[in-house]
Formats: sequence, structure tokens, C-alpha cells
Amino acid sequence: MNEAEFLAALRTLPLHPAARGLHDDAALLDITGPIVLTTDTLVEGVHFLPADPAEDVAWKLVATNLSDLAAKGAAPVGIMLNYPLAGDGGWDRGFLAGLEEILDRFGCPLIGGDTTALPAGAPRVLSVTAIGSDAPAPPRSGARDGDALWVAGPIGDAGAGLAIARGAPGPDALLAAYRRPMPLLAEGRRLGPQVHAMMDVSDGLLIDASRMASASGIAVTIDLATVPLSAVYRAHVGADRRARLAAATAGDDYALLFAASPGLRPAVPATRIGHFSAGVGLTLLDGGEAVPLPARLGFEHSA
Amino acid sequence: MNEAEFLAALRTLPLHPAARGLHDDAALLDITGPIVLTTDTLVEGVHFLPADPAEDVAWKLVATNLSDLAAKGAAPVGIMLNYPLAGDGGWDRGFLAGLEEILDRFGCPLIGGDTTALPAGAPRVLSVTAIGSDAPAPPRSGARDGDALWVAGPIGDAGAGLAIARGAPGPDALLAAYRRPMPLLAEGRRLGPQVHAMMDVSDGLLIDASRMASASGIAVTIDLATVPLSAVYRAHVGADRRARLAAATAGDDYALLFAASPGLRPAVPATRIGHFSAGVGLTLLDGGEAVPLPARLGFEHSA
Repeated sequence: MNEAEFLAALRTLPLHPAARGLHDDAALLDITGPIVLTTDTLVEGVHFLPADPAEDVAWKLVATNLSDLAAKGAAPVGIMLNYPLAGDGGWDRGFLAGLEEILDRFGCPLIGGDTTALPAGAPRVLSVTAIGSDAPAPPRSGARDGDALWVAGPIGDAGAGLAIARGAPGPDALLAAYRRPMPLLAEGRRLGPQVHAMMDVSDGLLIDASRMASASGIAVTIDLATVPLSAVYRAHVGADRRARLAAATAGDDYALLFAASPGLRPAVPATRIGHFSAGVGLTLLDGGEAVPLPARLGFEHSA
Repeated sequence: MNEAEFLAALRTLPLHPAARGLHDDAALLDITGPIVLTTDTLVEGVHFLPADPAEDVAWKLVATNLSDLAAKGAAPVGIMLNYPLAGDGGWDRGFLAGLEEILDRFGCPLIGGDTTALPAGAPRVLSVTAIGSDAPAPPRSGARDGDALWVAGPIGDAGAGLAIARGAPGPDALLAAYRRPMPLLAEGRRLGPQVHAMMDVSDGLLIDASRMASASGIAVTIDLATVPLSAVYRAHVGADRRARLAAATAGDDYALLFAASPGLRPAVPATRIGHFSAGVGLTLLDGGEAVPLPARLGFEHSA
């Protein structure tokens, strides 16, 4: 597909009125009140595998951004897309199909973007910037001494799915968790006004919880025994300490991690996995017993 | 530089309060009234040369986006940056220095972004999304039958500068026009309320004027003899038809191209280069004499 063909195809997707039909160099968005802005880049060979279907890459690219909106309790307004045309029309068409699916699924239209050529053989680098509105926007840094640490959404499925995407045998449900993560937008909307701090788990539960604690100037303790594992994860990987550690250090879960007053009852299903206290760093327990920290707490490739 | 070091360096740049010190996954921007959103991607080997200094790539990446804001008559609010860490600390530091320069120069702070790893040897792909406010936002599609076509800013300097960047001899002023384009923000602010249509000249005067005409459902006539060439361009390349055609089909000028009522006197220095009339397509004259269209009207690599 050349650029004109790709643009023509984009124009058949759900467009925000701000996009002016994608016939301009800039979008004009009429919005009142604070907006949430977030951007994520996916790099072929780093954040997705060259063999991952283009439909799934499109889904994941948008989902990672919508997950950041979810963590701020925001409603999606729309997205801007930076897309490289790499001279593979089949991939482009697959990407467009996956893009349409997720934009439809979350009622999130396209606001604008930029398409560029990519040198032959170069890995694809795709970016989306998402705009959200109406957000309580709990910061990453708001956790307080005595707060409980909660997570909404299972941990570890996407990590197990990555191994399957790389060729290991395993159930489709885990592969789907890796390739088609579900941003917890509805959950984030309900949790936003309740919590002191919130972020999504994108790089691994342990590293992301450490980042919340560090940003909040406080220490965090997590009990591995309480980390929520899905039934399919338990069946495929297990639930022993090794399996729980693997889940807690794998990325791409897009669960919501939040800090809230110890007495709070979350408005959506969630699991209490730890607490914050004065001090610094991460303490790991397993059923109350101290566990040494693993060498790697998660991925450090992305911001 | 690793990601933590790069983020620490970014935190020393001008930051928008919405950035929350770049300690969160999302920015919270409190703004009233319509906003302008635009995004541009630069690809190494496509939009810039591998040998271009990193300082200049940073400048150009932001400048191309600010130029799109200028064309909508918008004031810059801030930018989001998608940056690939390619394992070259010298390049990263150069990029940060150039970024600081242009953010300072145009009072445009950083709002957020994403840093990613890039596989070894992969060309850099850099994106910026710019947010502007307070814009009359003339569309690309507003040119009317009888309107005059104007351009603010000289044409062709950056194209001649590209040849110099590739190794040809030539004056520094032309090289600077290619590597350090100046977004015409102040000019755009003054022209915005006066014009019917406006866009920046990024891919070449002829192709961009054709796009304005096409978006407006109208024909455009340009007289090559009136295309404004700088004194340094005239001295280095000449001013004959070949030189004027080269200028009118080269990219990266970031001049402002606008359509306005025939009686309008633009609020900033500008040159009248043609007019719009009923019909379709581009007609080229040279001193009133019809000239065949060149095979290539400009670059088609970017949106």
C-alpha cells in the first residue's frame, strides 16, 4: 500500500470530528476540562515479535495506550497514530483490520497521525498518543504509609503467552492475553476516584510496584502467595513459588495496580497483594515468609 | 545512556506542569478551549541523513511539528516525545542538547513521552506530537474561487541545503535552512484570522499547493517567476527556470502557504504566487507563459 491508499483506508475507520476527515495536517479538538495525554511506542523485535499477526500488533499498540488512560481513570477521547509503511500491503491491511476492531470495541476514534516510509528491512516502530477526558487522574506517586496495595486483573497470563508466541506449546487463552490485552477502562473509571495512586502493570508486577513505591517516597511489601493467577495460568504453569515469581516479573499484563486506604473496599473485583510503609524499596514475602528478590523484577525497556 | 539516565536528563529540560515531573505514565493537561493536535515522525535515512548531527535532528523533529501548529495559527502548549535509545550515548546527549535549544527558543515545554530500546543497527524512528492552543485553525480545504495564493518565507533553501548535507559544496546558510528550519509561529498567529486556508510547505511548494487545491475542490495556478527565492539561493543555485523549478519541488521549507481574498493585505511579509479558480489541478506559468508540470511535484513520503 502506498501512503494515499493507507490514508484512504484510515478514512473508513471511526474518525473523531477533530480529525477533519484526515484531510489536514493538524486536528482541532474542542474539549473542555482537563485532558489526559499518554503515548507508547512498540518496536518490532522488542515489544512484539516479527511473527505476531499485524491485527494483534494494532490491537496491542492501542491497548497499551488505553491501559494508561485506564490507570488515570480517564475516558478515551481518541488517538493519534504514527505508522511506518514498510512495503508489505498484507501487513498494512491486517494492521488496519486490528485497528478498526479495537477502536470499535472501546468507542475510541482516530484523531490524526502521520504515515512515513521505512527503509527496507528496518524493524517497524509504531507509536500511538491517546487523549482521555474526565479523569480523576490518580498519580503514580500518591501511595501513603499504611495504604493497601491492590491489583485488578490476573497477573502472568501475558508472560506465559509470550512463551507460546515464541513457539512453546500452550493454551490459546494465554496467547490471547499476550497478543490481545484488554485495557481495563471501565474498571479504571470506577477506581479512579477511590484510590491514592494507580498505574497499569506493563513491565511486571514487581518492577511496577517498586516504581509506585519509589515515586511515592515509601516502601512496599508484596506477598507472592496473594498474587492473583488465572485458572488457565495455574493449569499451564502452576502455582508454586517459581510460577508465582514468573508471573510477578513478566510484563504486558495491563492489570491495574493501585494504592488505597486500608479500609477501602474497591468498586471492582481486585486482590489485595501487599501494603505500603515508611522506608524505601520492595520487600517480598511468600505466605508471610521472606523471599529474596529475584535478579530481574521485570522489563526495563519502556517508560 | 540507559532509559533512567535519559529520563533524568529529560527532567532537566523545560517541563510543563502537566508532565508531573515525568514521573507518571500519563500527563494531565488542564486547558480550556479548543486544542490543536499534530504529530510528525522522522525516520533516519528517509527524513534525515545518518550523518546529520543529533542536535539538528532534535531541532528538526520539533520544528516540523511546530510548523504544523503555525499553519493553524496556534500557540504551542507543549510536546510529547517518542524516543528510541539506540545505544549511542553521544547521539543521545546531542539530541537532548538540540531539544533543549528548540524548546527554549519557542517557549514550548515537554509534556510527556515514551523511550524505547531499538534493535542494533535499526534506523532511528522519532516522533513528536505537539499540542497547540488558541487557534483560528484555518483548514487546508478552505481555498475559494478567486482567492490569491500566497507564501510567507523563502522557497528552496532547504532543498539546496540537503544537497550540501549530502556532500556538495555550498554556503552554511543553506545547510542551516535544511538542518534548522524555523517554524513561523509568530507569522501563523497573525495570518490565522486573515486567511481561508493555510498549510506549511513541507514536501514541496508545487505538491503542497496541489494538495490545498485538491482538498478545497478547486484549481490552482502558480507563476514560477513570482516564487520567492532567497538572496543566498539565487547566488548559489541561480534564478532561472531550472533553479525556480528545483526550489518549487524541494521539501523541508516550512514556509506558510495560504489562500486569502484577492483584496487581502497579509499581516506579515508574504509573496503572492498564484490564484485559485474553478476546476481541478495545478497550472504552472513562468512569467505568464505556460510551463509543463515537472514529473515530480515534491516528496510523497509523509502525511
